[in-house]
Amino acid sequence: KNIAVLAGDGIGPEIMASAIRVLKAGTKSVSTEFEYVEYPFGGAGIDAAGDPLPDETIQACQEADAILLGAIGGPKWDQAPKRPEQGLLQLRKALNLYANIRPITVPDSLLPLSPIKEAIVKGTDFVVVRELTSGIYFGEPRSLTDEEAYDTNRYQVHEIERIVRKAFEIAQGRQKRLVSVDKANVLATSKLWRKTVERIAKEYPDVTVEHQYVDAAAMLIVQKPTTFDVIVTENLFGDILSDEASVLPGTLGVLPSASHSESGVSLYEPIHGSAPDIAGKNVANPVSMILSATLMLRQSFNMDDVADQIEEACYAVLNEGTVTRDLGGTAMTSEFTDAVIEKLS
Amino acid sequence: KNIAVLAGDGIGPEIMASAIRVLKAGTKSVSTEFEYVEYPFGGAGIDAAGDPLPDETIQACQEADAILLGAIGGPKWDQAPKRPEQGLLQLRKALNLYANIRPITVPDSLLPLSPIKEAIVKGTDFVVVRELTSGIYFGEPRSLTDEEAYDTNRYQVHEIERIVRKAFEIAQGRQKRLVSVDKANVLATSKLWRKTVERIAKEYPDVTVEHQYVDAAAMLIVQKPTTFDVIVTENLFGDILSDEASVLPGTLGVLPSASHSESGVSLYEPIHGSAPDIAGKNVANPVSMILSATLMLRQSFNMDDVADQIEEACYAVLNEGTVTRDLGGTAMTSEFTDAVIEKLS
Ligand SMILES: CC(C)[C@H](C(=O)O)[C@@H](O)C(=O)O
Ligand SMILES: CC(C)[C@H](C(=O)O)[C@@H](O)C(=O)O
Repeated sequence: KNIAVLAGDGIGPEIMASAIRVLKAGTKSVSTEFEYVEYPFGGAGIDAAGDPLPDETIQACQEADAILLGAIGGPKWDQAPKRPEQGLLQLRKALNLYANIRPITVPDSLLPLSPIKEAIVKGTDFVVVRELTSGIYFGEPRSLTDEEAYDTNRYQVHEIERIVRKAFEIAQGRQKRLVSVDKANVLATSKLWRKTVERIAKEYPDVTVEHQYVDAAAMLIVQKPTTFDVIVTENLFGDILSDEASVLPGTLGVLPSASHSESGVSLYEPIHGSAPDIAGKNVANPVSMILSATLMLRQSFNMDDVADQIEEACYAVLNEGTVTRDLGGTAMTSEFTDAVIEKLS
Repeated sequence: KNIAVLAGDGIGPEIMASAIRVLKAGTKSVSTEFEYVEYPFGGAGIDAAGDPLPDETIQACQEADAILLGAIGGPKWDQAPKRPEQGLLQLRKALNLYANIRPITVPDSLLPLSPIKEAIVKGTDFVVVRELTSGIYFGEPRSLTDEEAYDTNRYQVHEIERIVRKAFEIAQGRQKRLVSVDKANVLATSKLWRKTVERIAKEYPDVTVEHQYVDAAAMLIVQKPTTFDVIVTENLFGDILSDEASVLPGTLGVLPSASHSESGVSLYEPIHGSAPDIAGKNVANPVSMILSATLMLRQSFNMDDVADQIEEACYAVLNEGTVTRDLGGTAMTSEFTDAVIEKLS
């Protein structure tokens, strides 16, 4: 299996190194062979090749069996003509990674860290399914002058259908409760979204569907996070709501994500940013990257056993208190990684 | 002073009746005379005149010295050809109510109700300044077919300038810290927004300015709500973030808002909805409507003394434990109102 490794910027390279060490240890005794090849991306792409998404990188991603991405961006490239984020958007579009899956869980051991009261947040376990290749992120026309600017939020019905089907399928494998988030009292795109959800719902009679306005959903994620099972929404709302939801566990350092295309390759990355302030200090929490790697094992390679083992090892080390700074501990990135690998063997 | 009273739907009429009784008691001994005239609006407008914003209502609002609005909407009108919400958007646009001001405070007495841990939320006191008459809510063109839908997010620079100036002025009267929220890494409108904020910031050198992406702001509102003083943002982001922030006090029943036009009339309303499930039961919390009325006294009529008295009476009653159901008490809407009026005399 060829894995394209885009370590990126900031803490990206550190947490990627940790995840690959864990992957190698975890897959040592399986028959499948993994090859990990690094490619420049984001700020690192600008530095190496003058472009956040160099040709070589996009080509390698297209040919890979899966992609691991660390994190990108940083003040160094804020004034670049093409910023690291542009590379990320371009990569999503080029690979047609339309389905971004962000599981939000709050393990009991993290309850003390959550900003939310324990009685409210305990047991939180839901998935945000975000449309990732359309909407206002990519809609044309757009324009920017000194006098006026505009963006276009555009959705074709087939773009809504495929992400909604994906969400229904995920819901079928869980608690079978889907919340579709829109702003159908204001937006034309949301009206089409809601109509499409209602039509497709008939194909999944075992799943219950509820519609929420995005402003109401933004409230409920904080007020009643345990009521959600699967949330499906369009690109911009998904950006905002999944980031909001990511604060529930009290640290971003534990949340992975997966992005799937219709037929081809998938990309796995933490949902947090590149944290330039703590980069290169060996203090970043690699759990989000390690769990992104286990999502890869499950969703791209059907290797649930190895994924289970790695996750169990991770949680065991966390429960023993060998935790990084963001979790209130003193373990360095490499120490935590060593401990996980030791547990695995 | 002519006050146009739009009680609206659901709990609107009950909380409006309460606020007007309190207003009358509070202004009994001042020389200014207030006249309160009710007009149909929202679902009530559809029922009375076949339109959520009847001509008579819009005309009365244009001629009034201030407008009090209860709440609108409900399942009864969900299938109406023109829904109650359309009337609200049309009213905002017709009166040019471009500046929506939503103060978010968490009084110590509400800390037990907040979903957020006390150590994090204690002392929260900020204002969301939301642009209310432009952006994707009103941008043209927009289209909806079976195959595709689109909306246009459009901002003219003068629309950004006036709301940003308003926010700077509000910040000058507070802690002088302004956070401008955008998505400038993706949207053309946000790039113009950020550029405009930076230009106007030079006119207000005493105010410090920080830019945040909307996804980051959605996180920080929960993680570090006490770090905010004034937030300024565009229409859709303001909708989502101000609703998210409204959960901090643990009940929506205490949060007022004001919407200002460039020269003319202002509108005052609670930020919550019409709560059809508890309508007509005399259990709704009228504090949000009473505080909206005190905002009117302050911002439209410079009657800070009366406003202070009413607010003090409200908080005194709250602290004595005469509170409605949403606050964990047993007081009926009318009992709470009686208690406030008694305190005033
Ligand atoms: C970096 C940015 C363009 C990106 C987005 O808005 O999609 C990020 O916030 C994310 O959620 O992956
Ligand atoms: C009812 C709806 C159109 C409205 C809005 O989105 O502006 C409401 O949510 C609000 O915030 O006042």
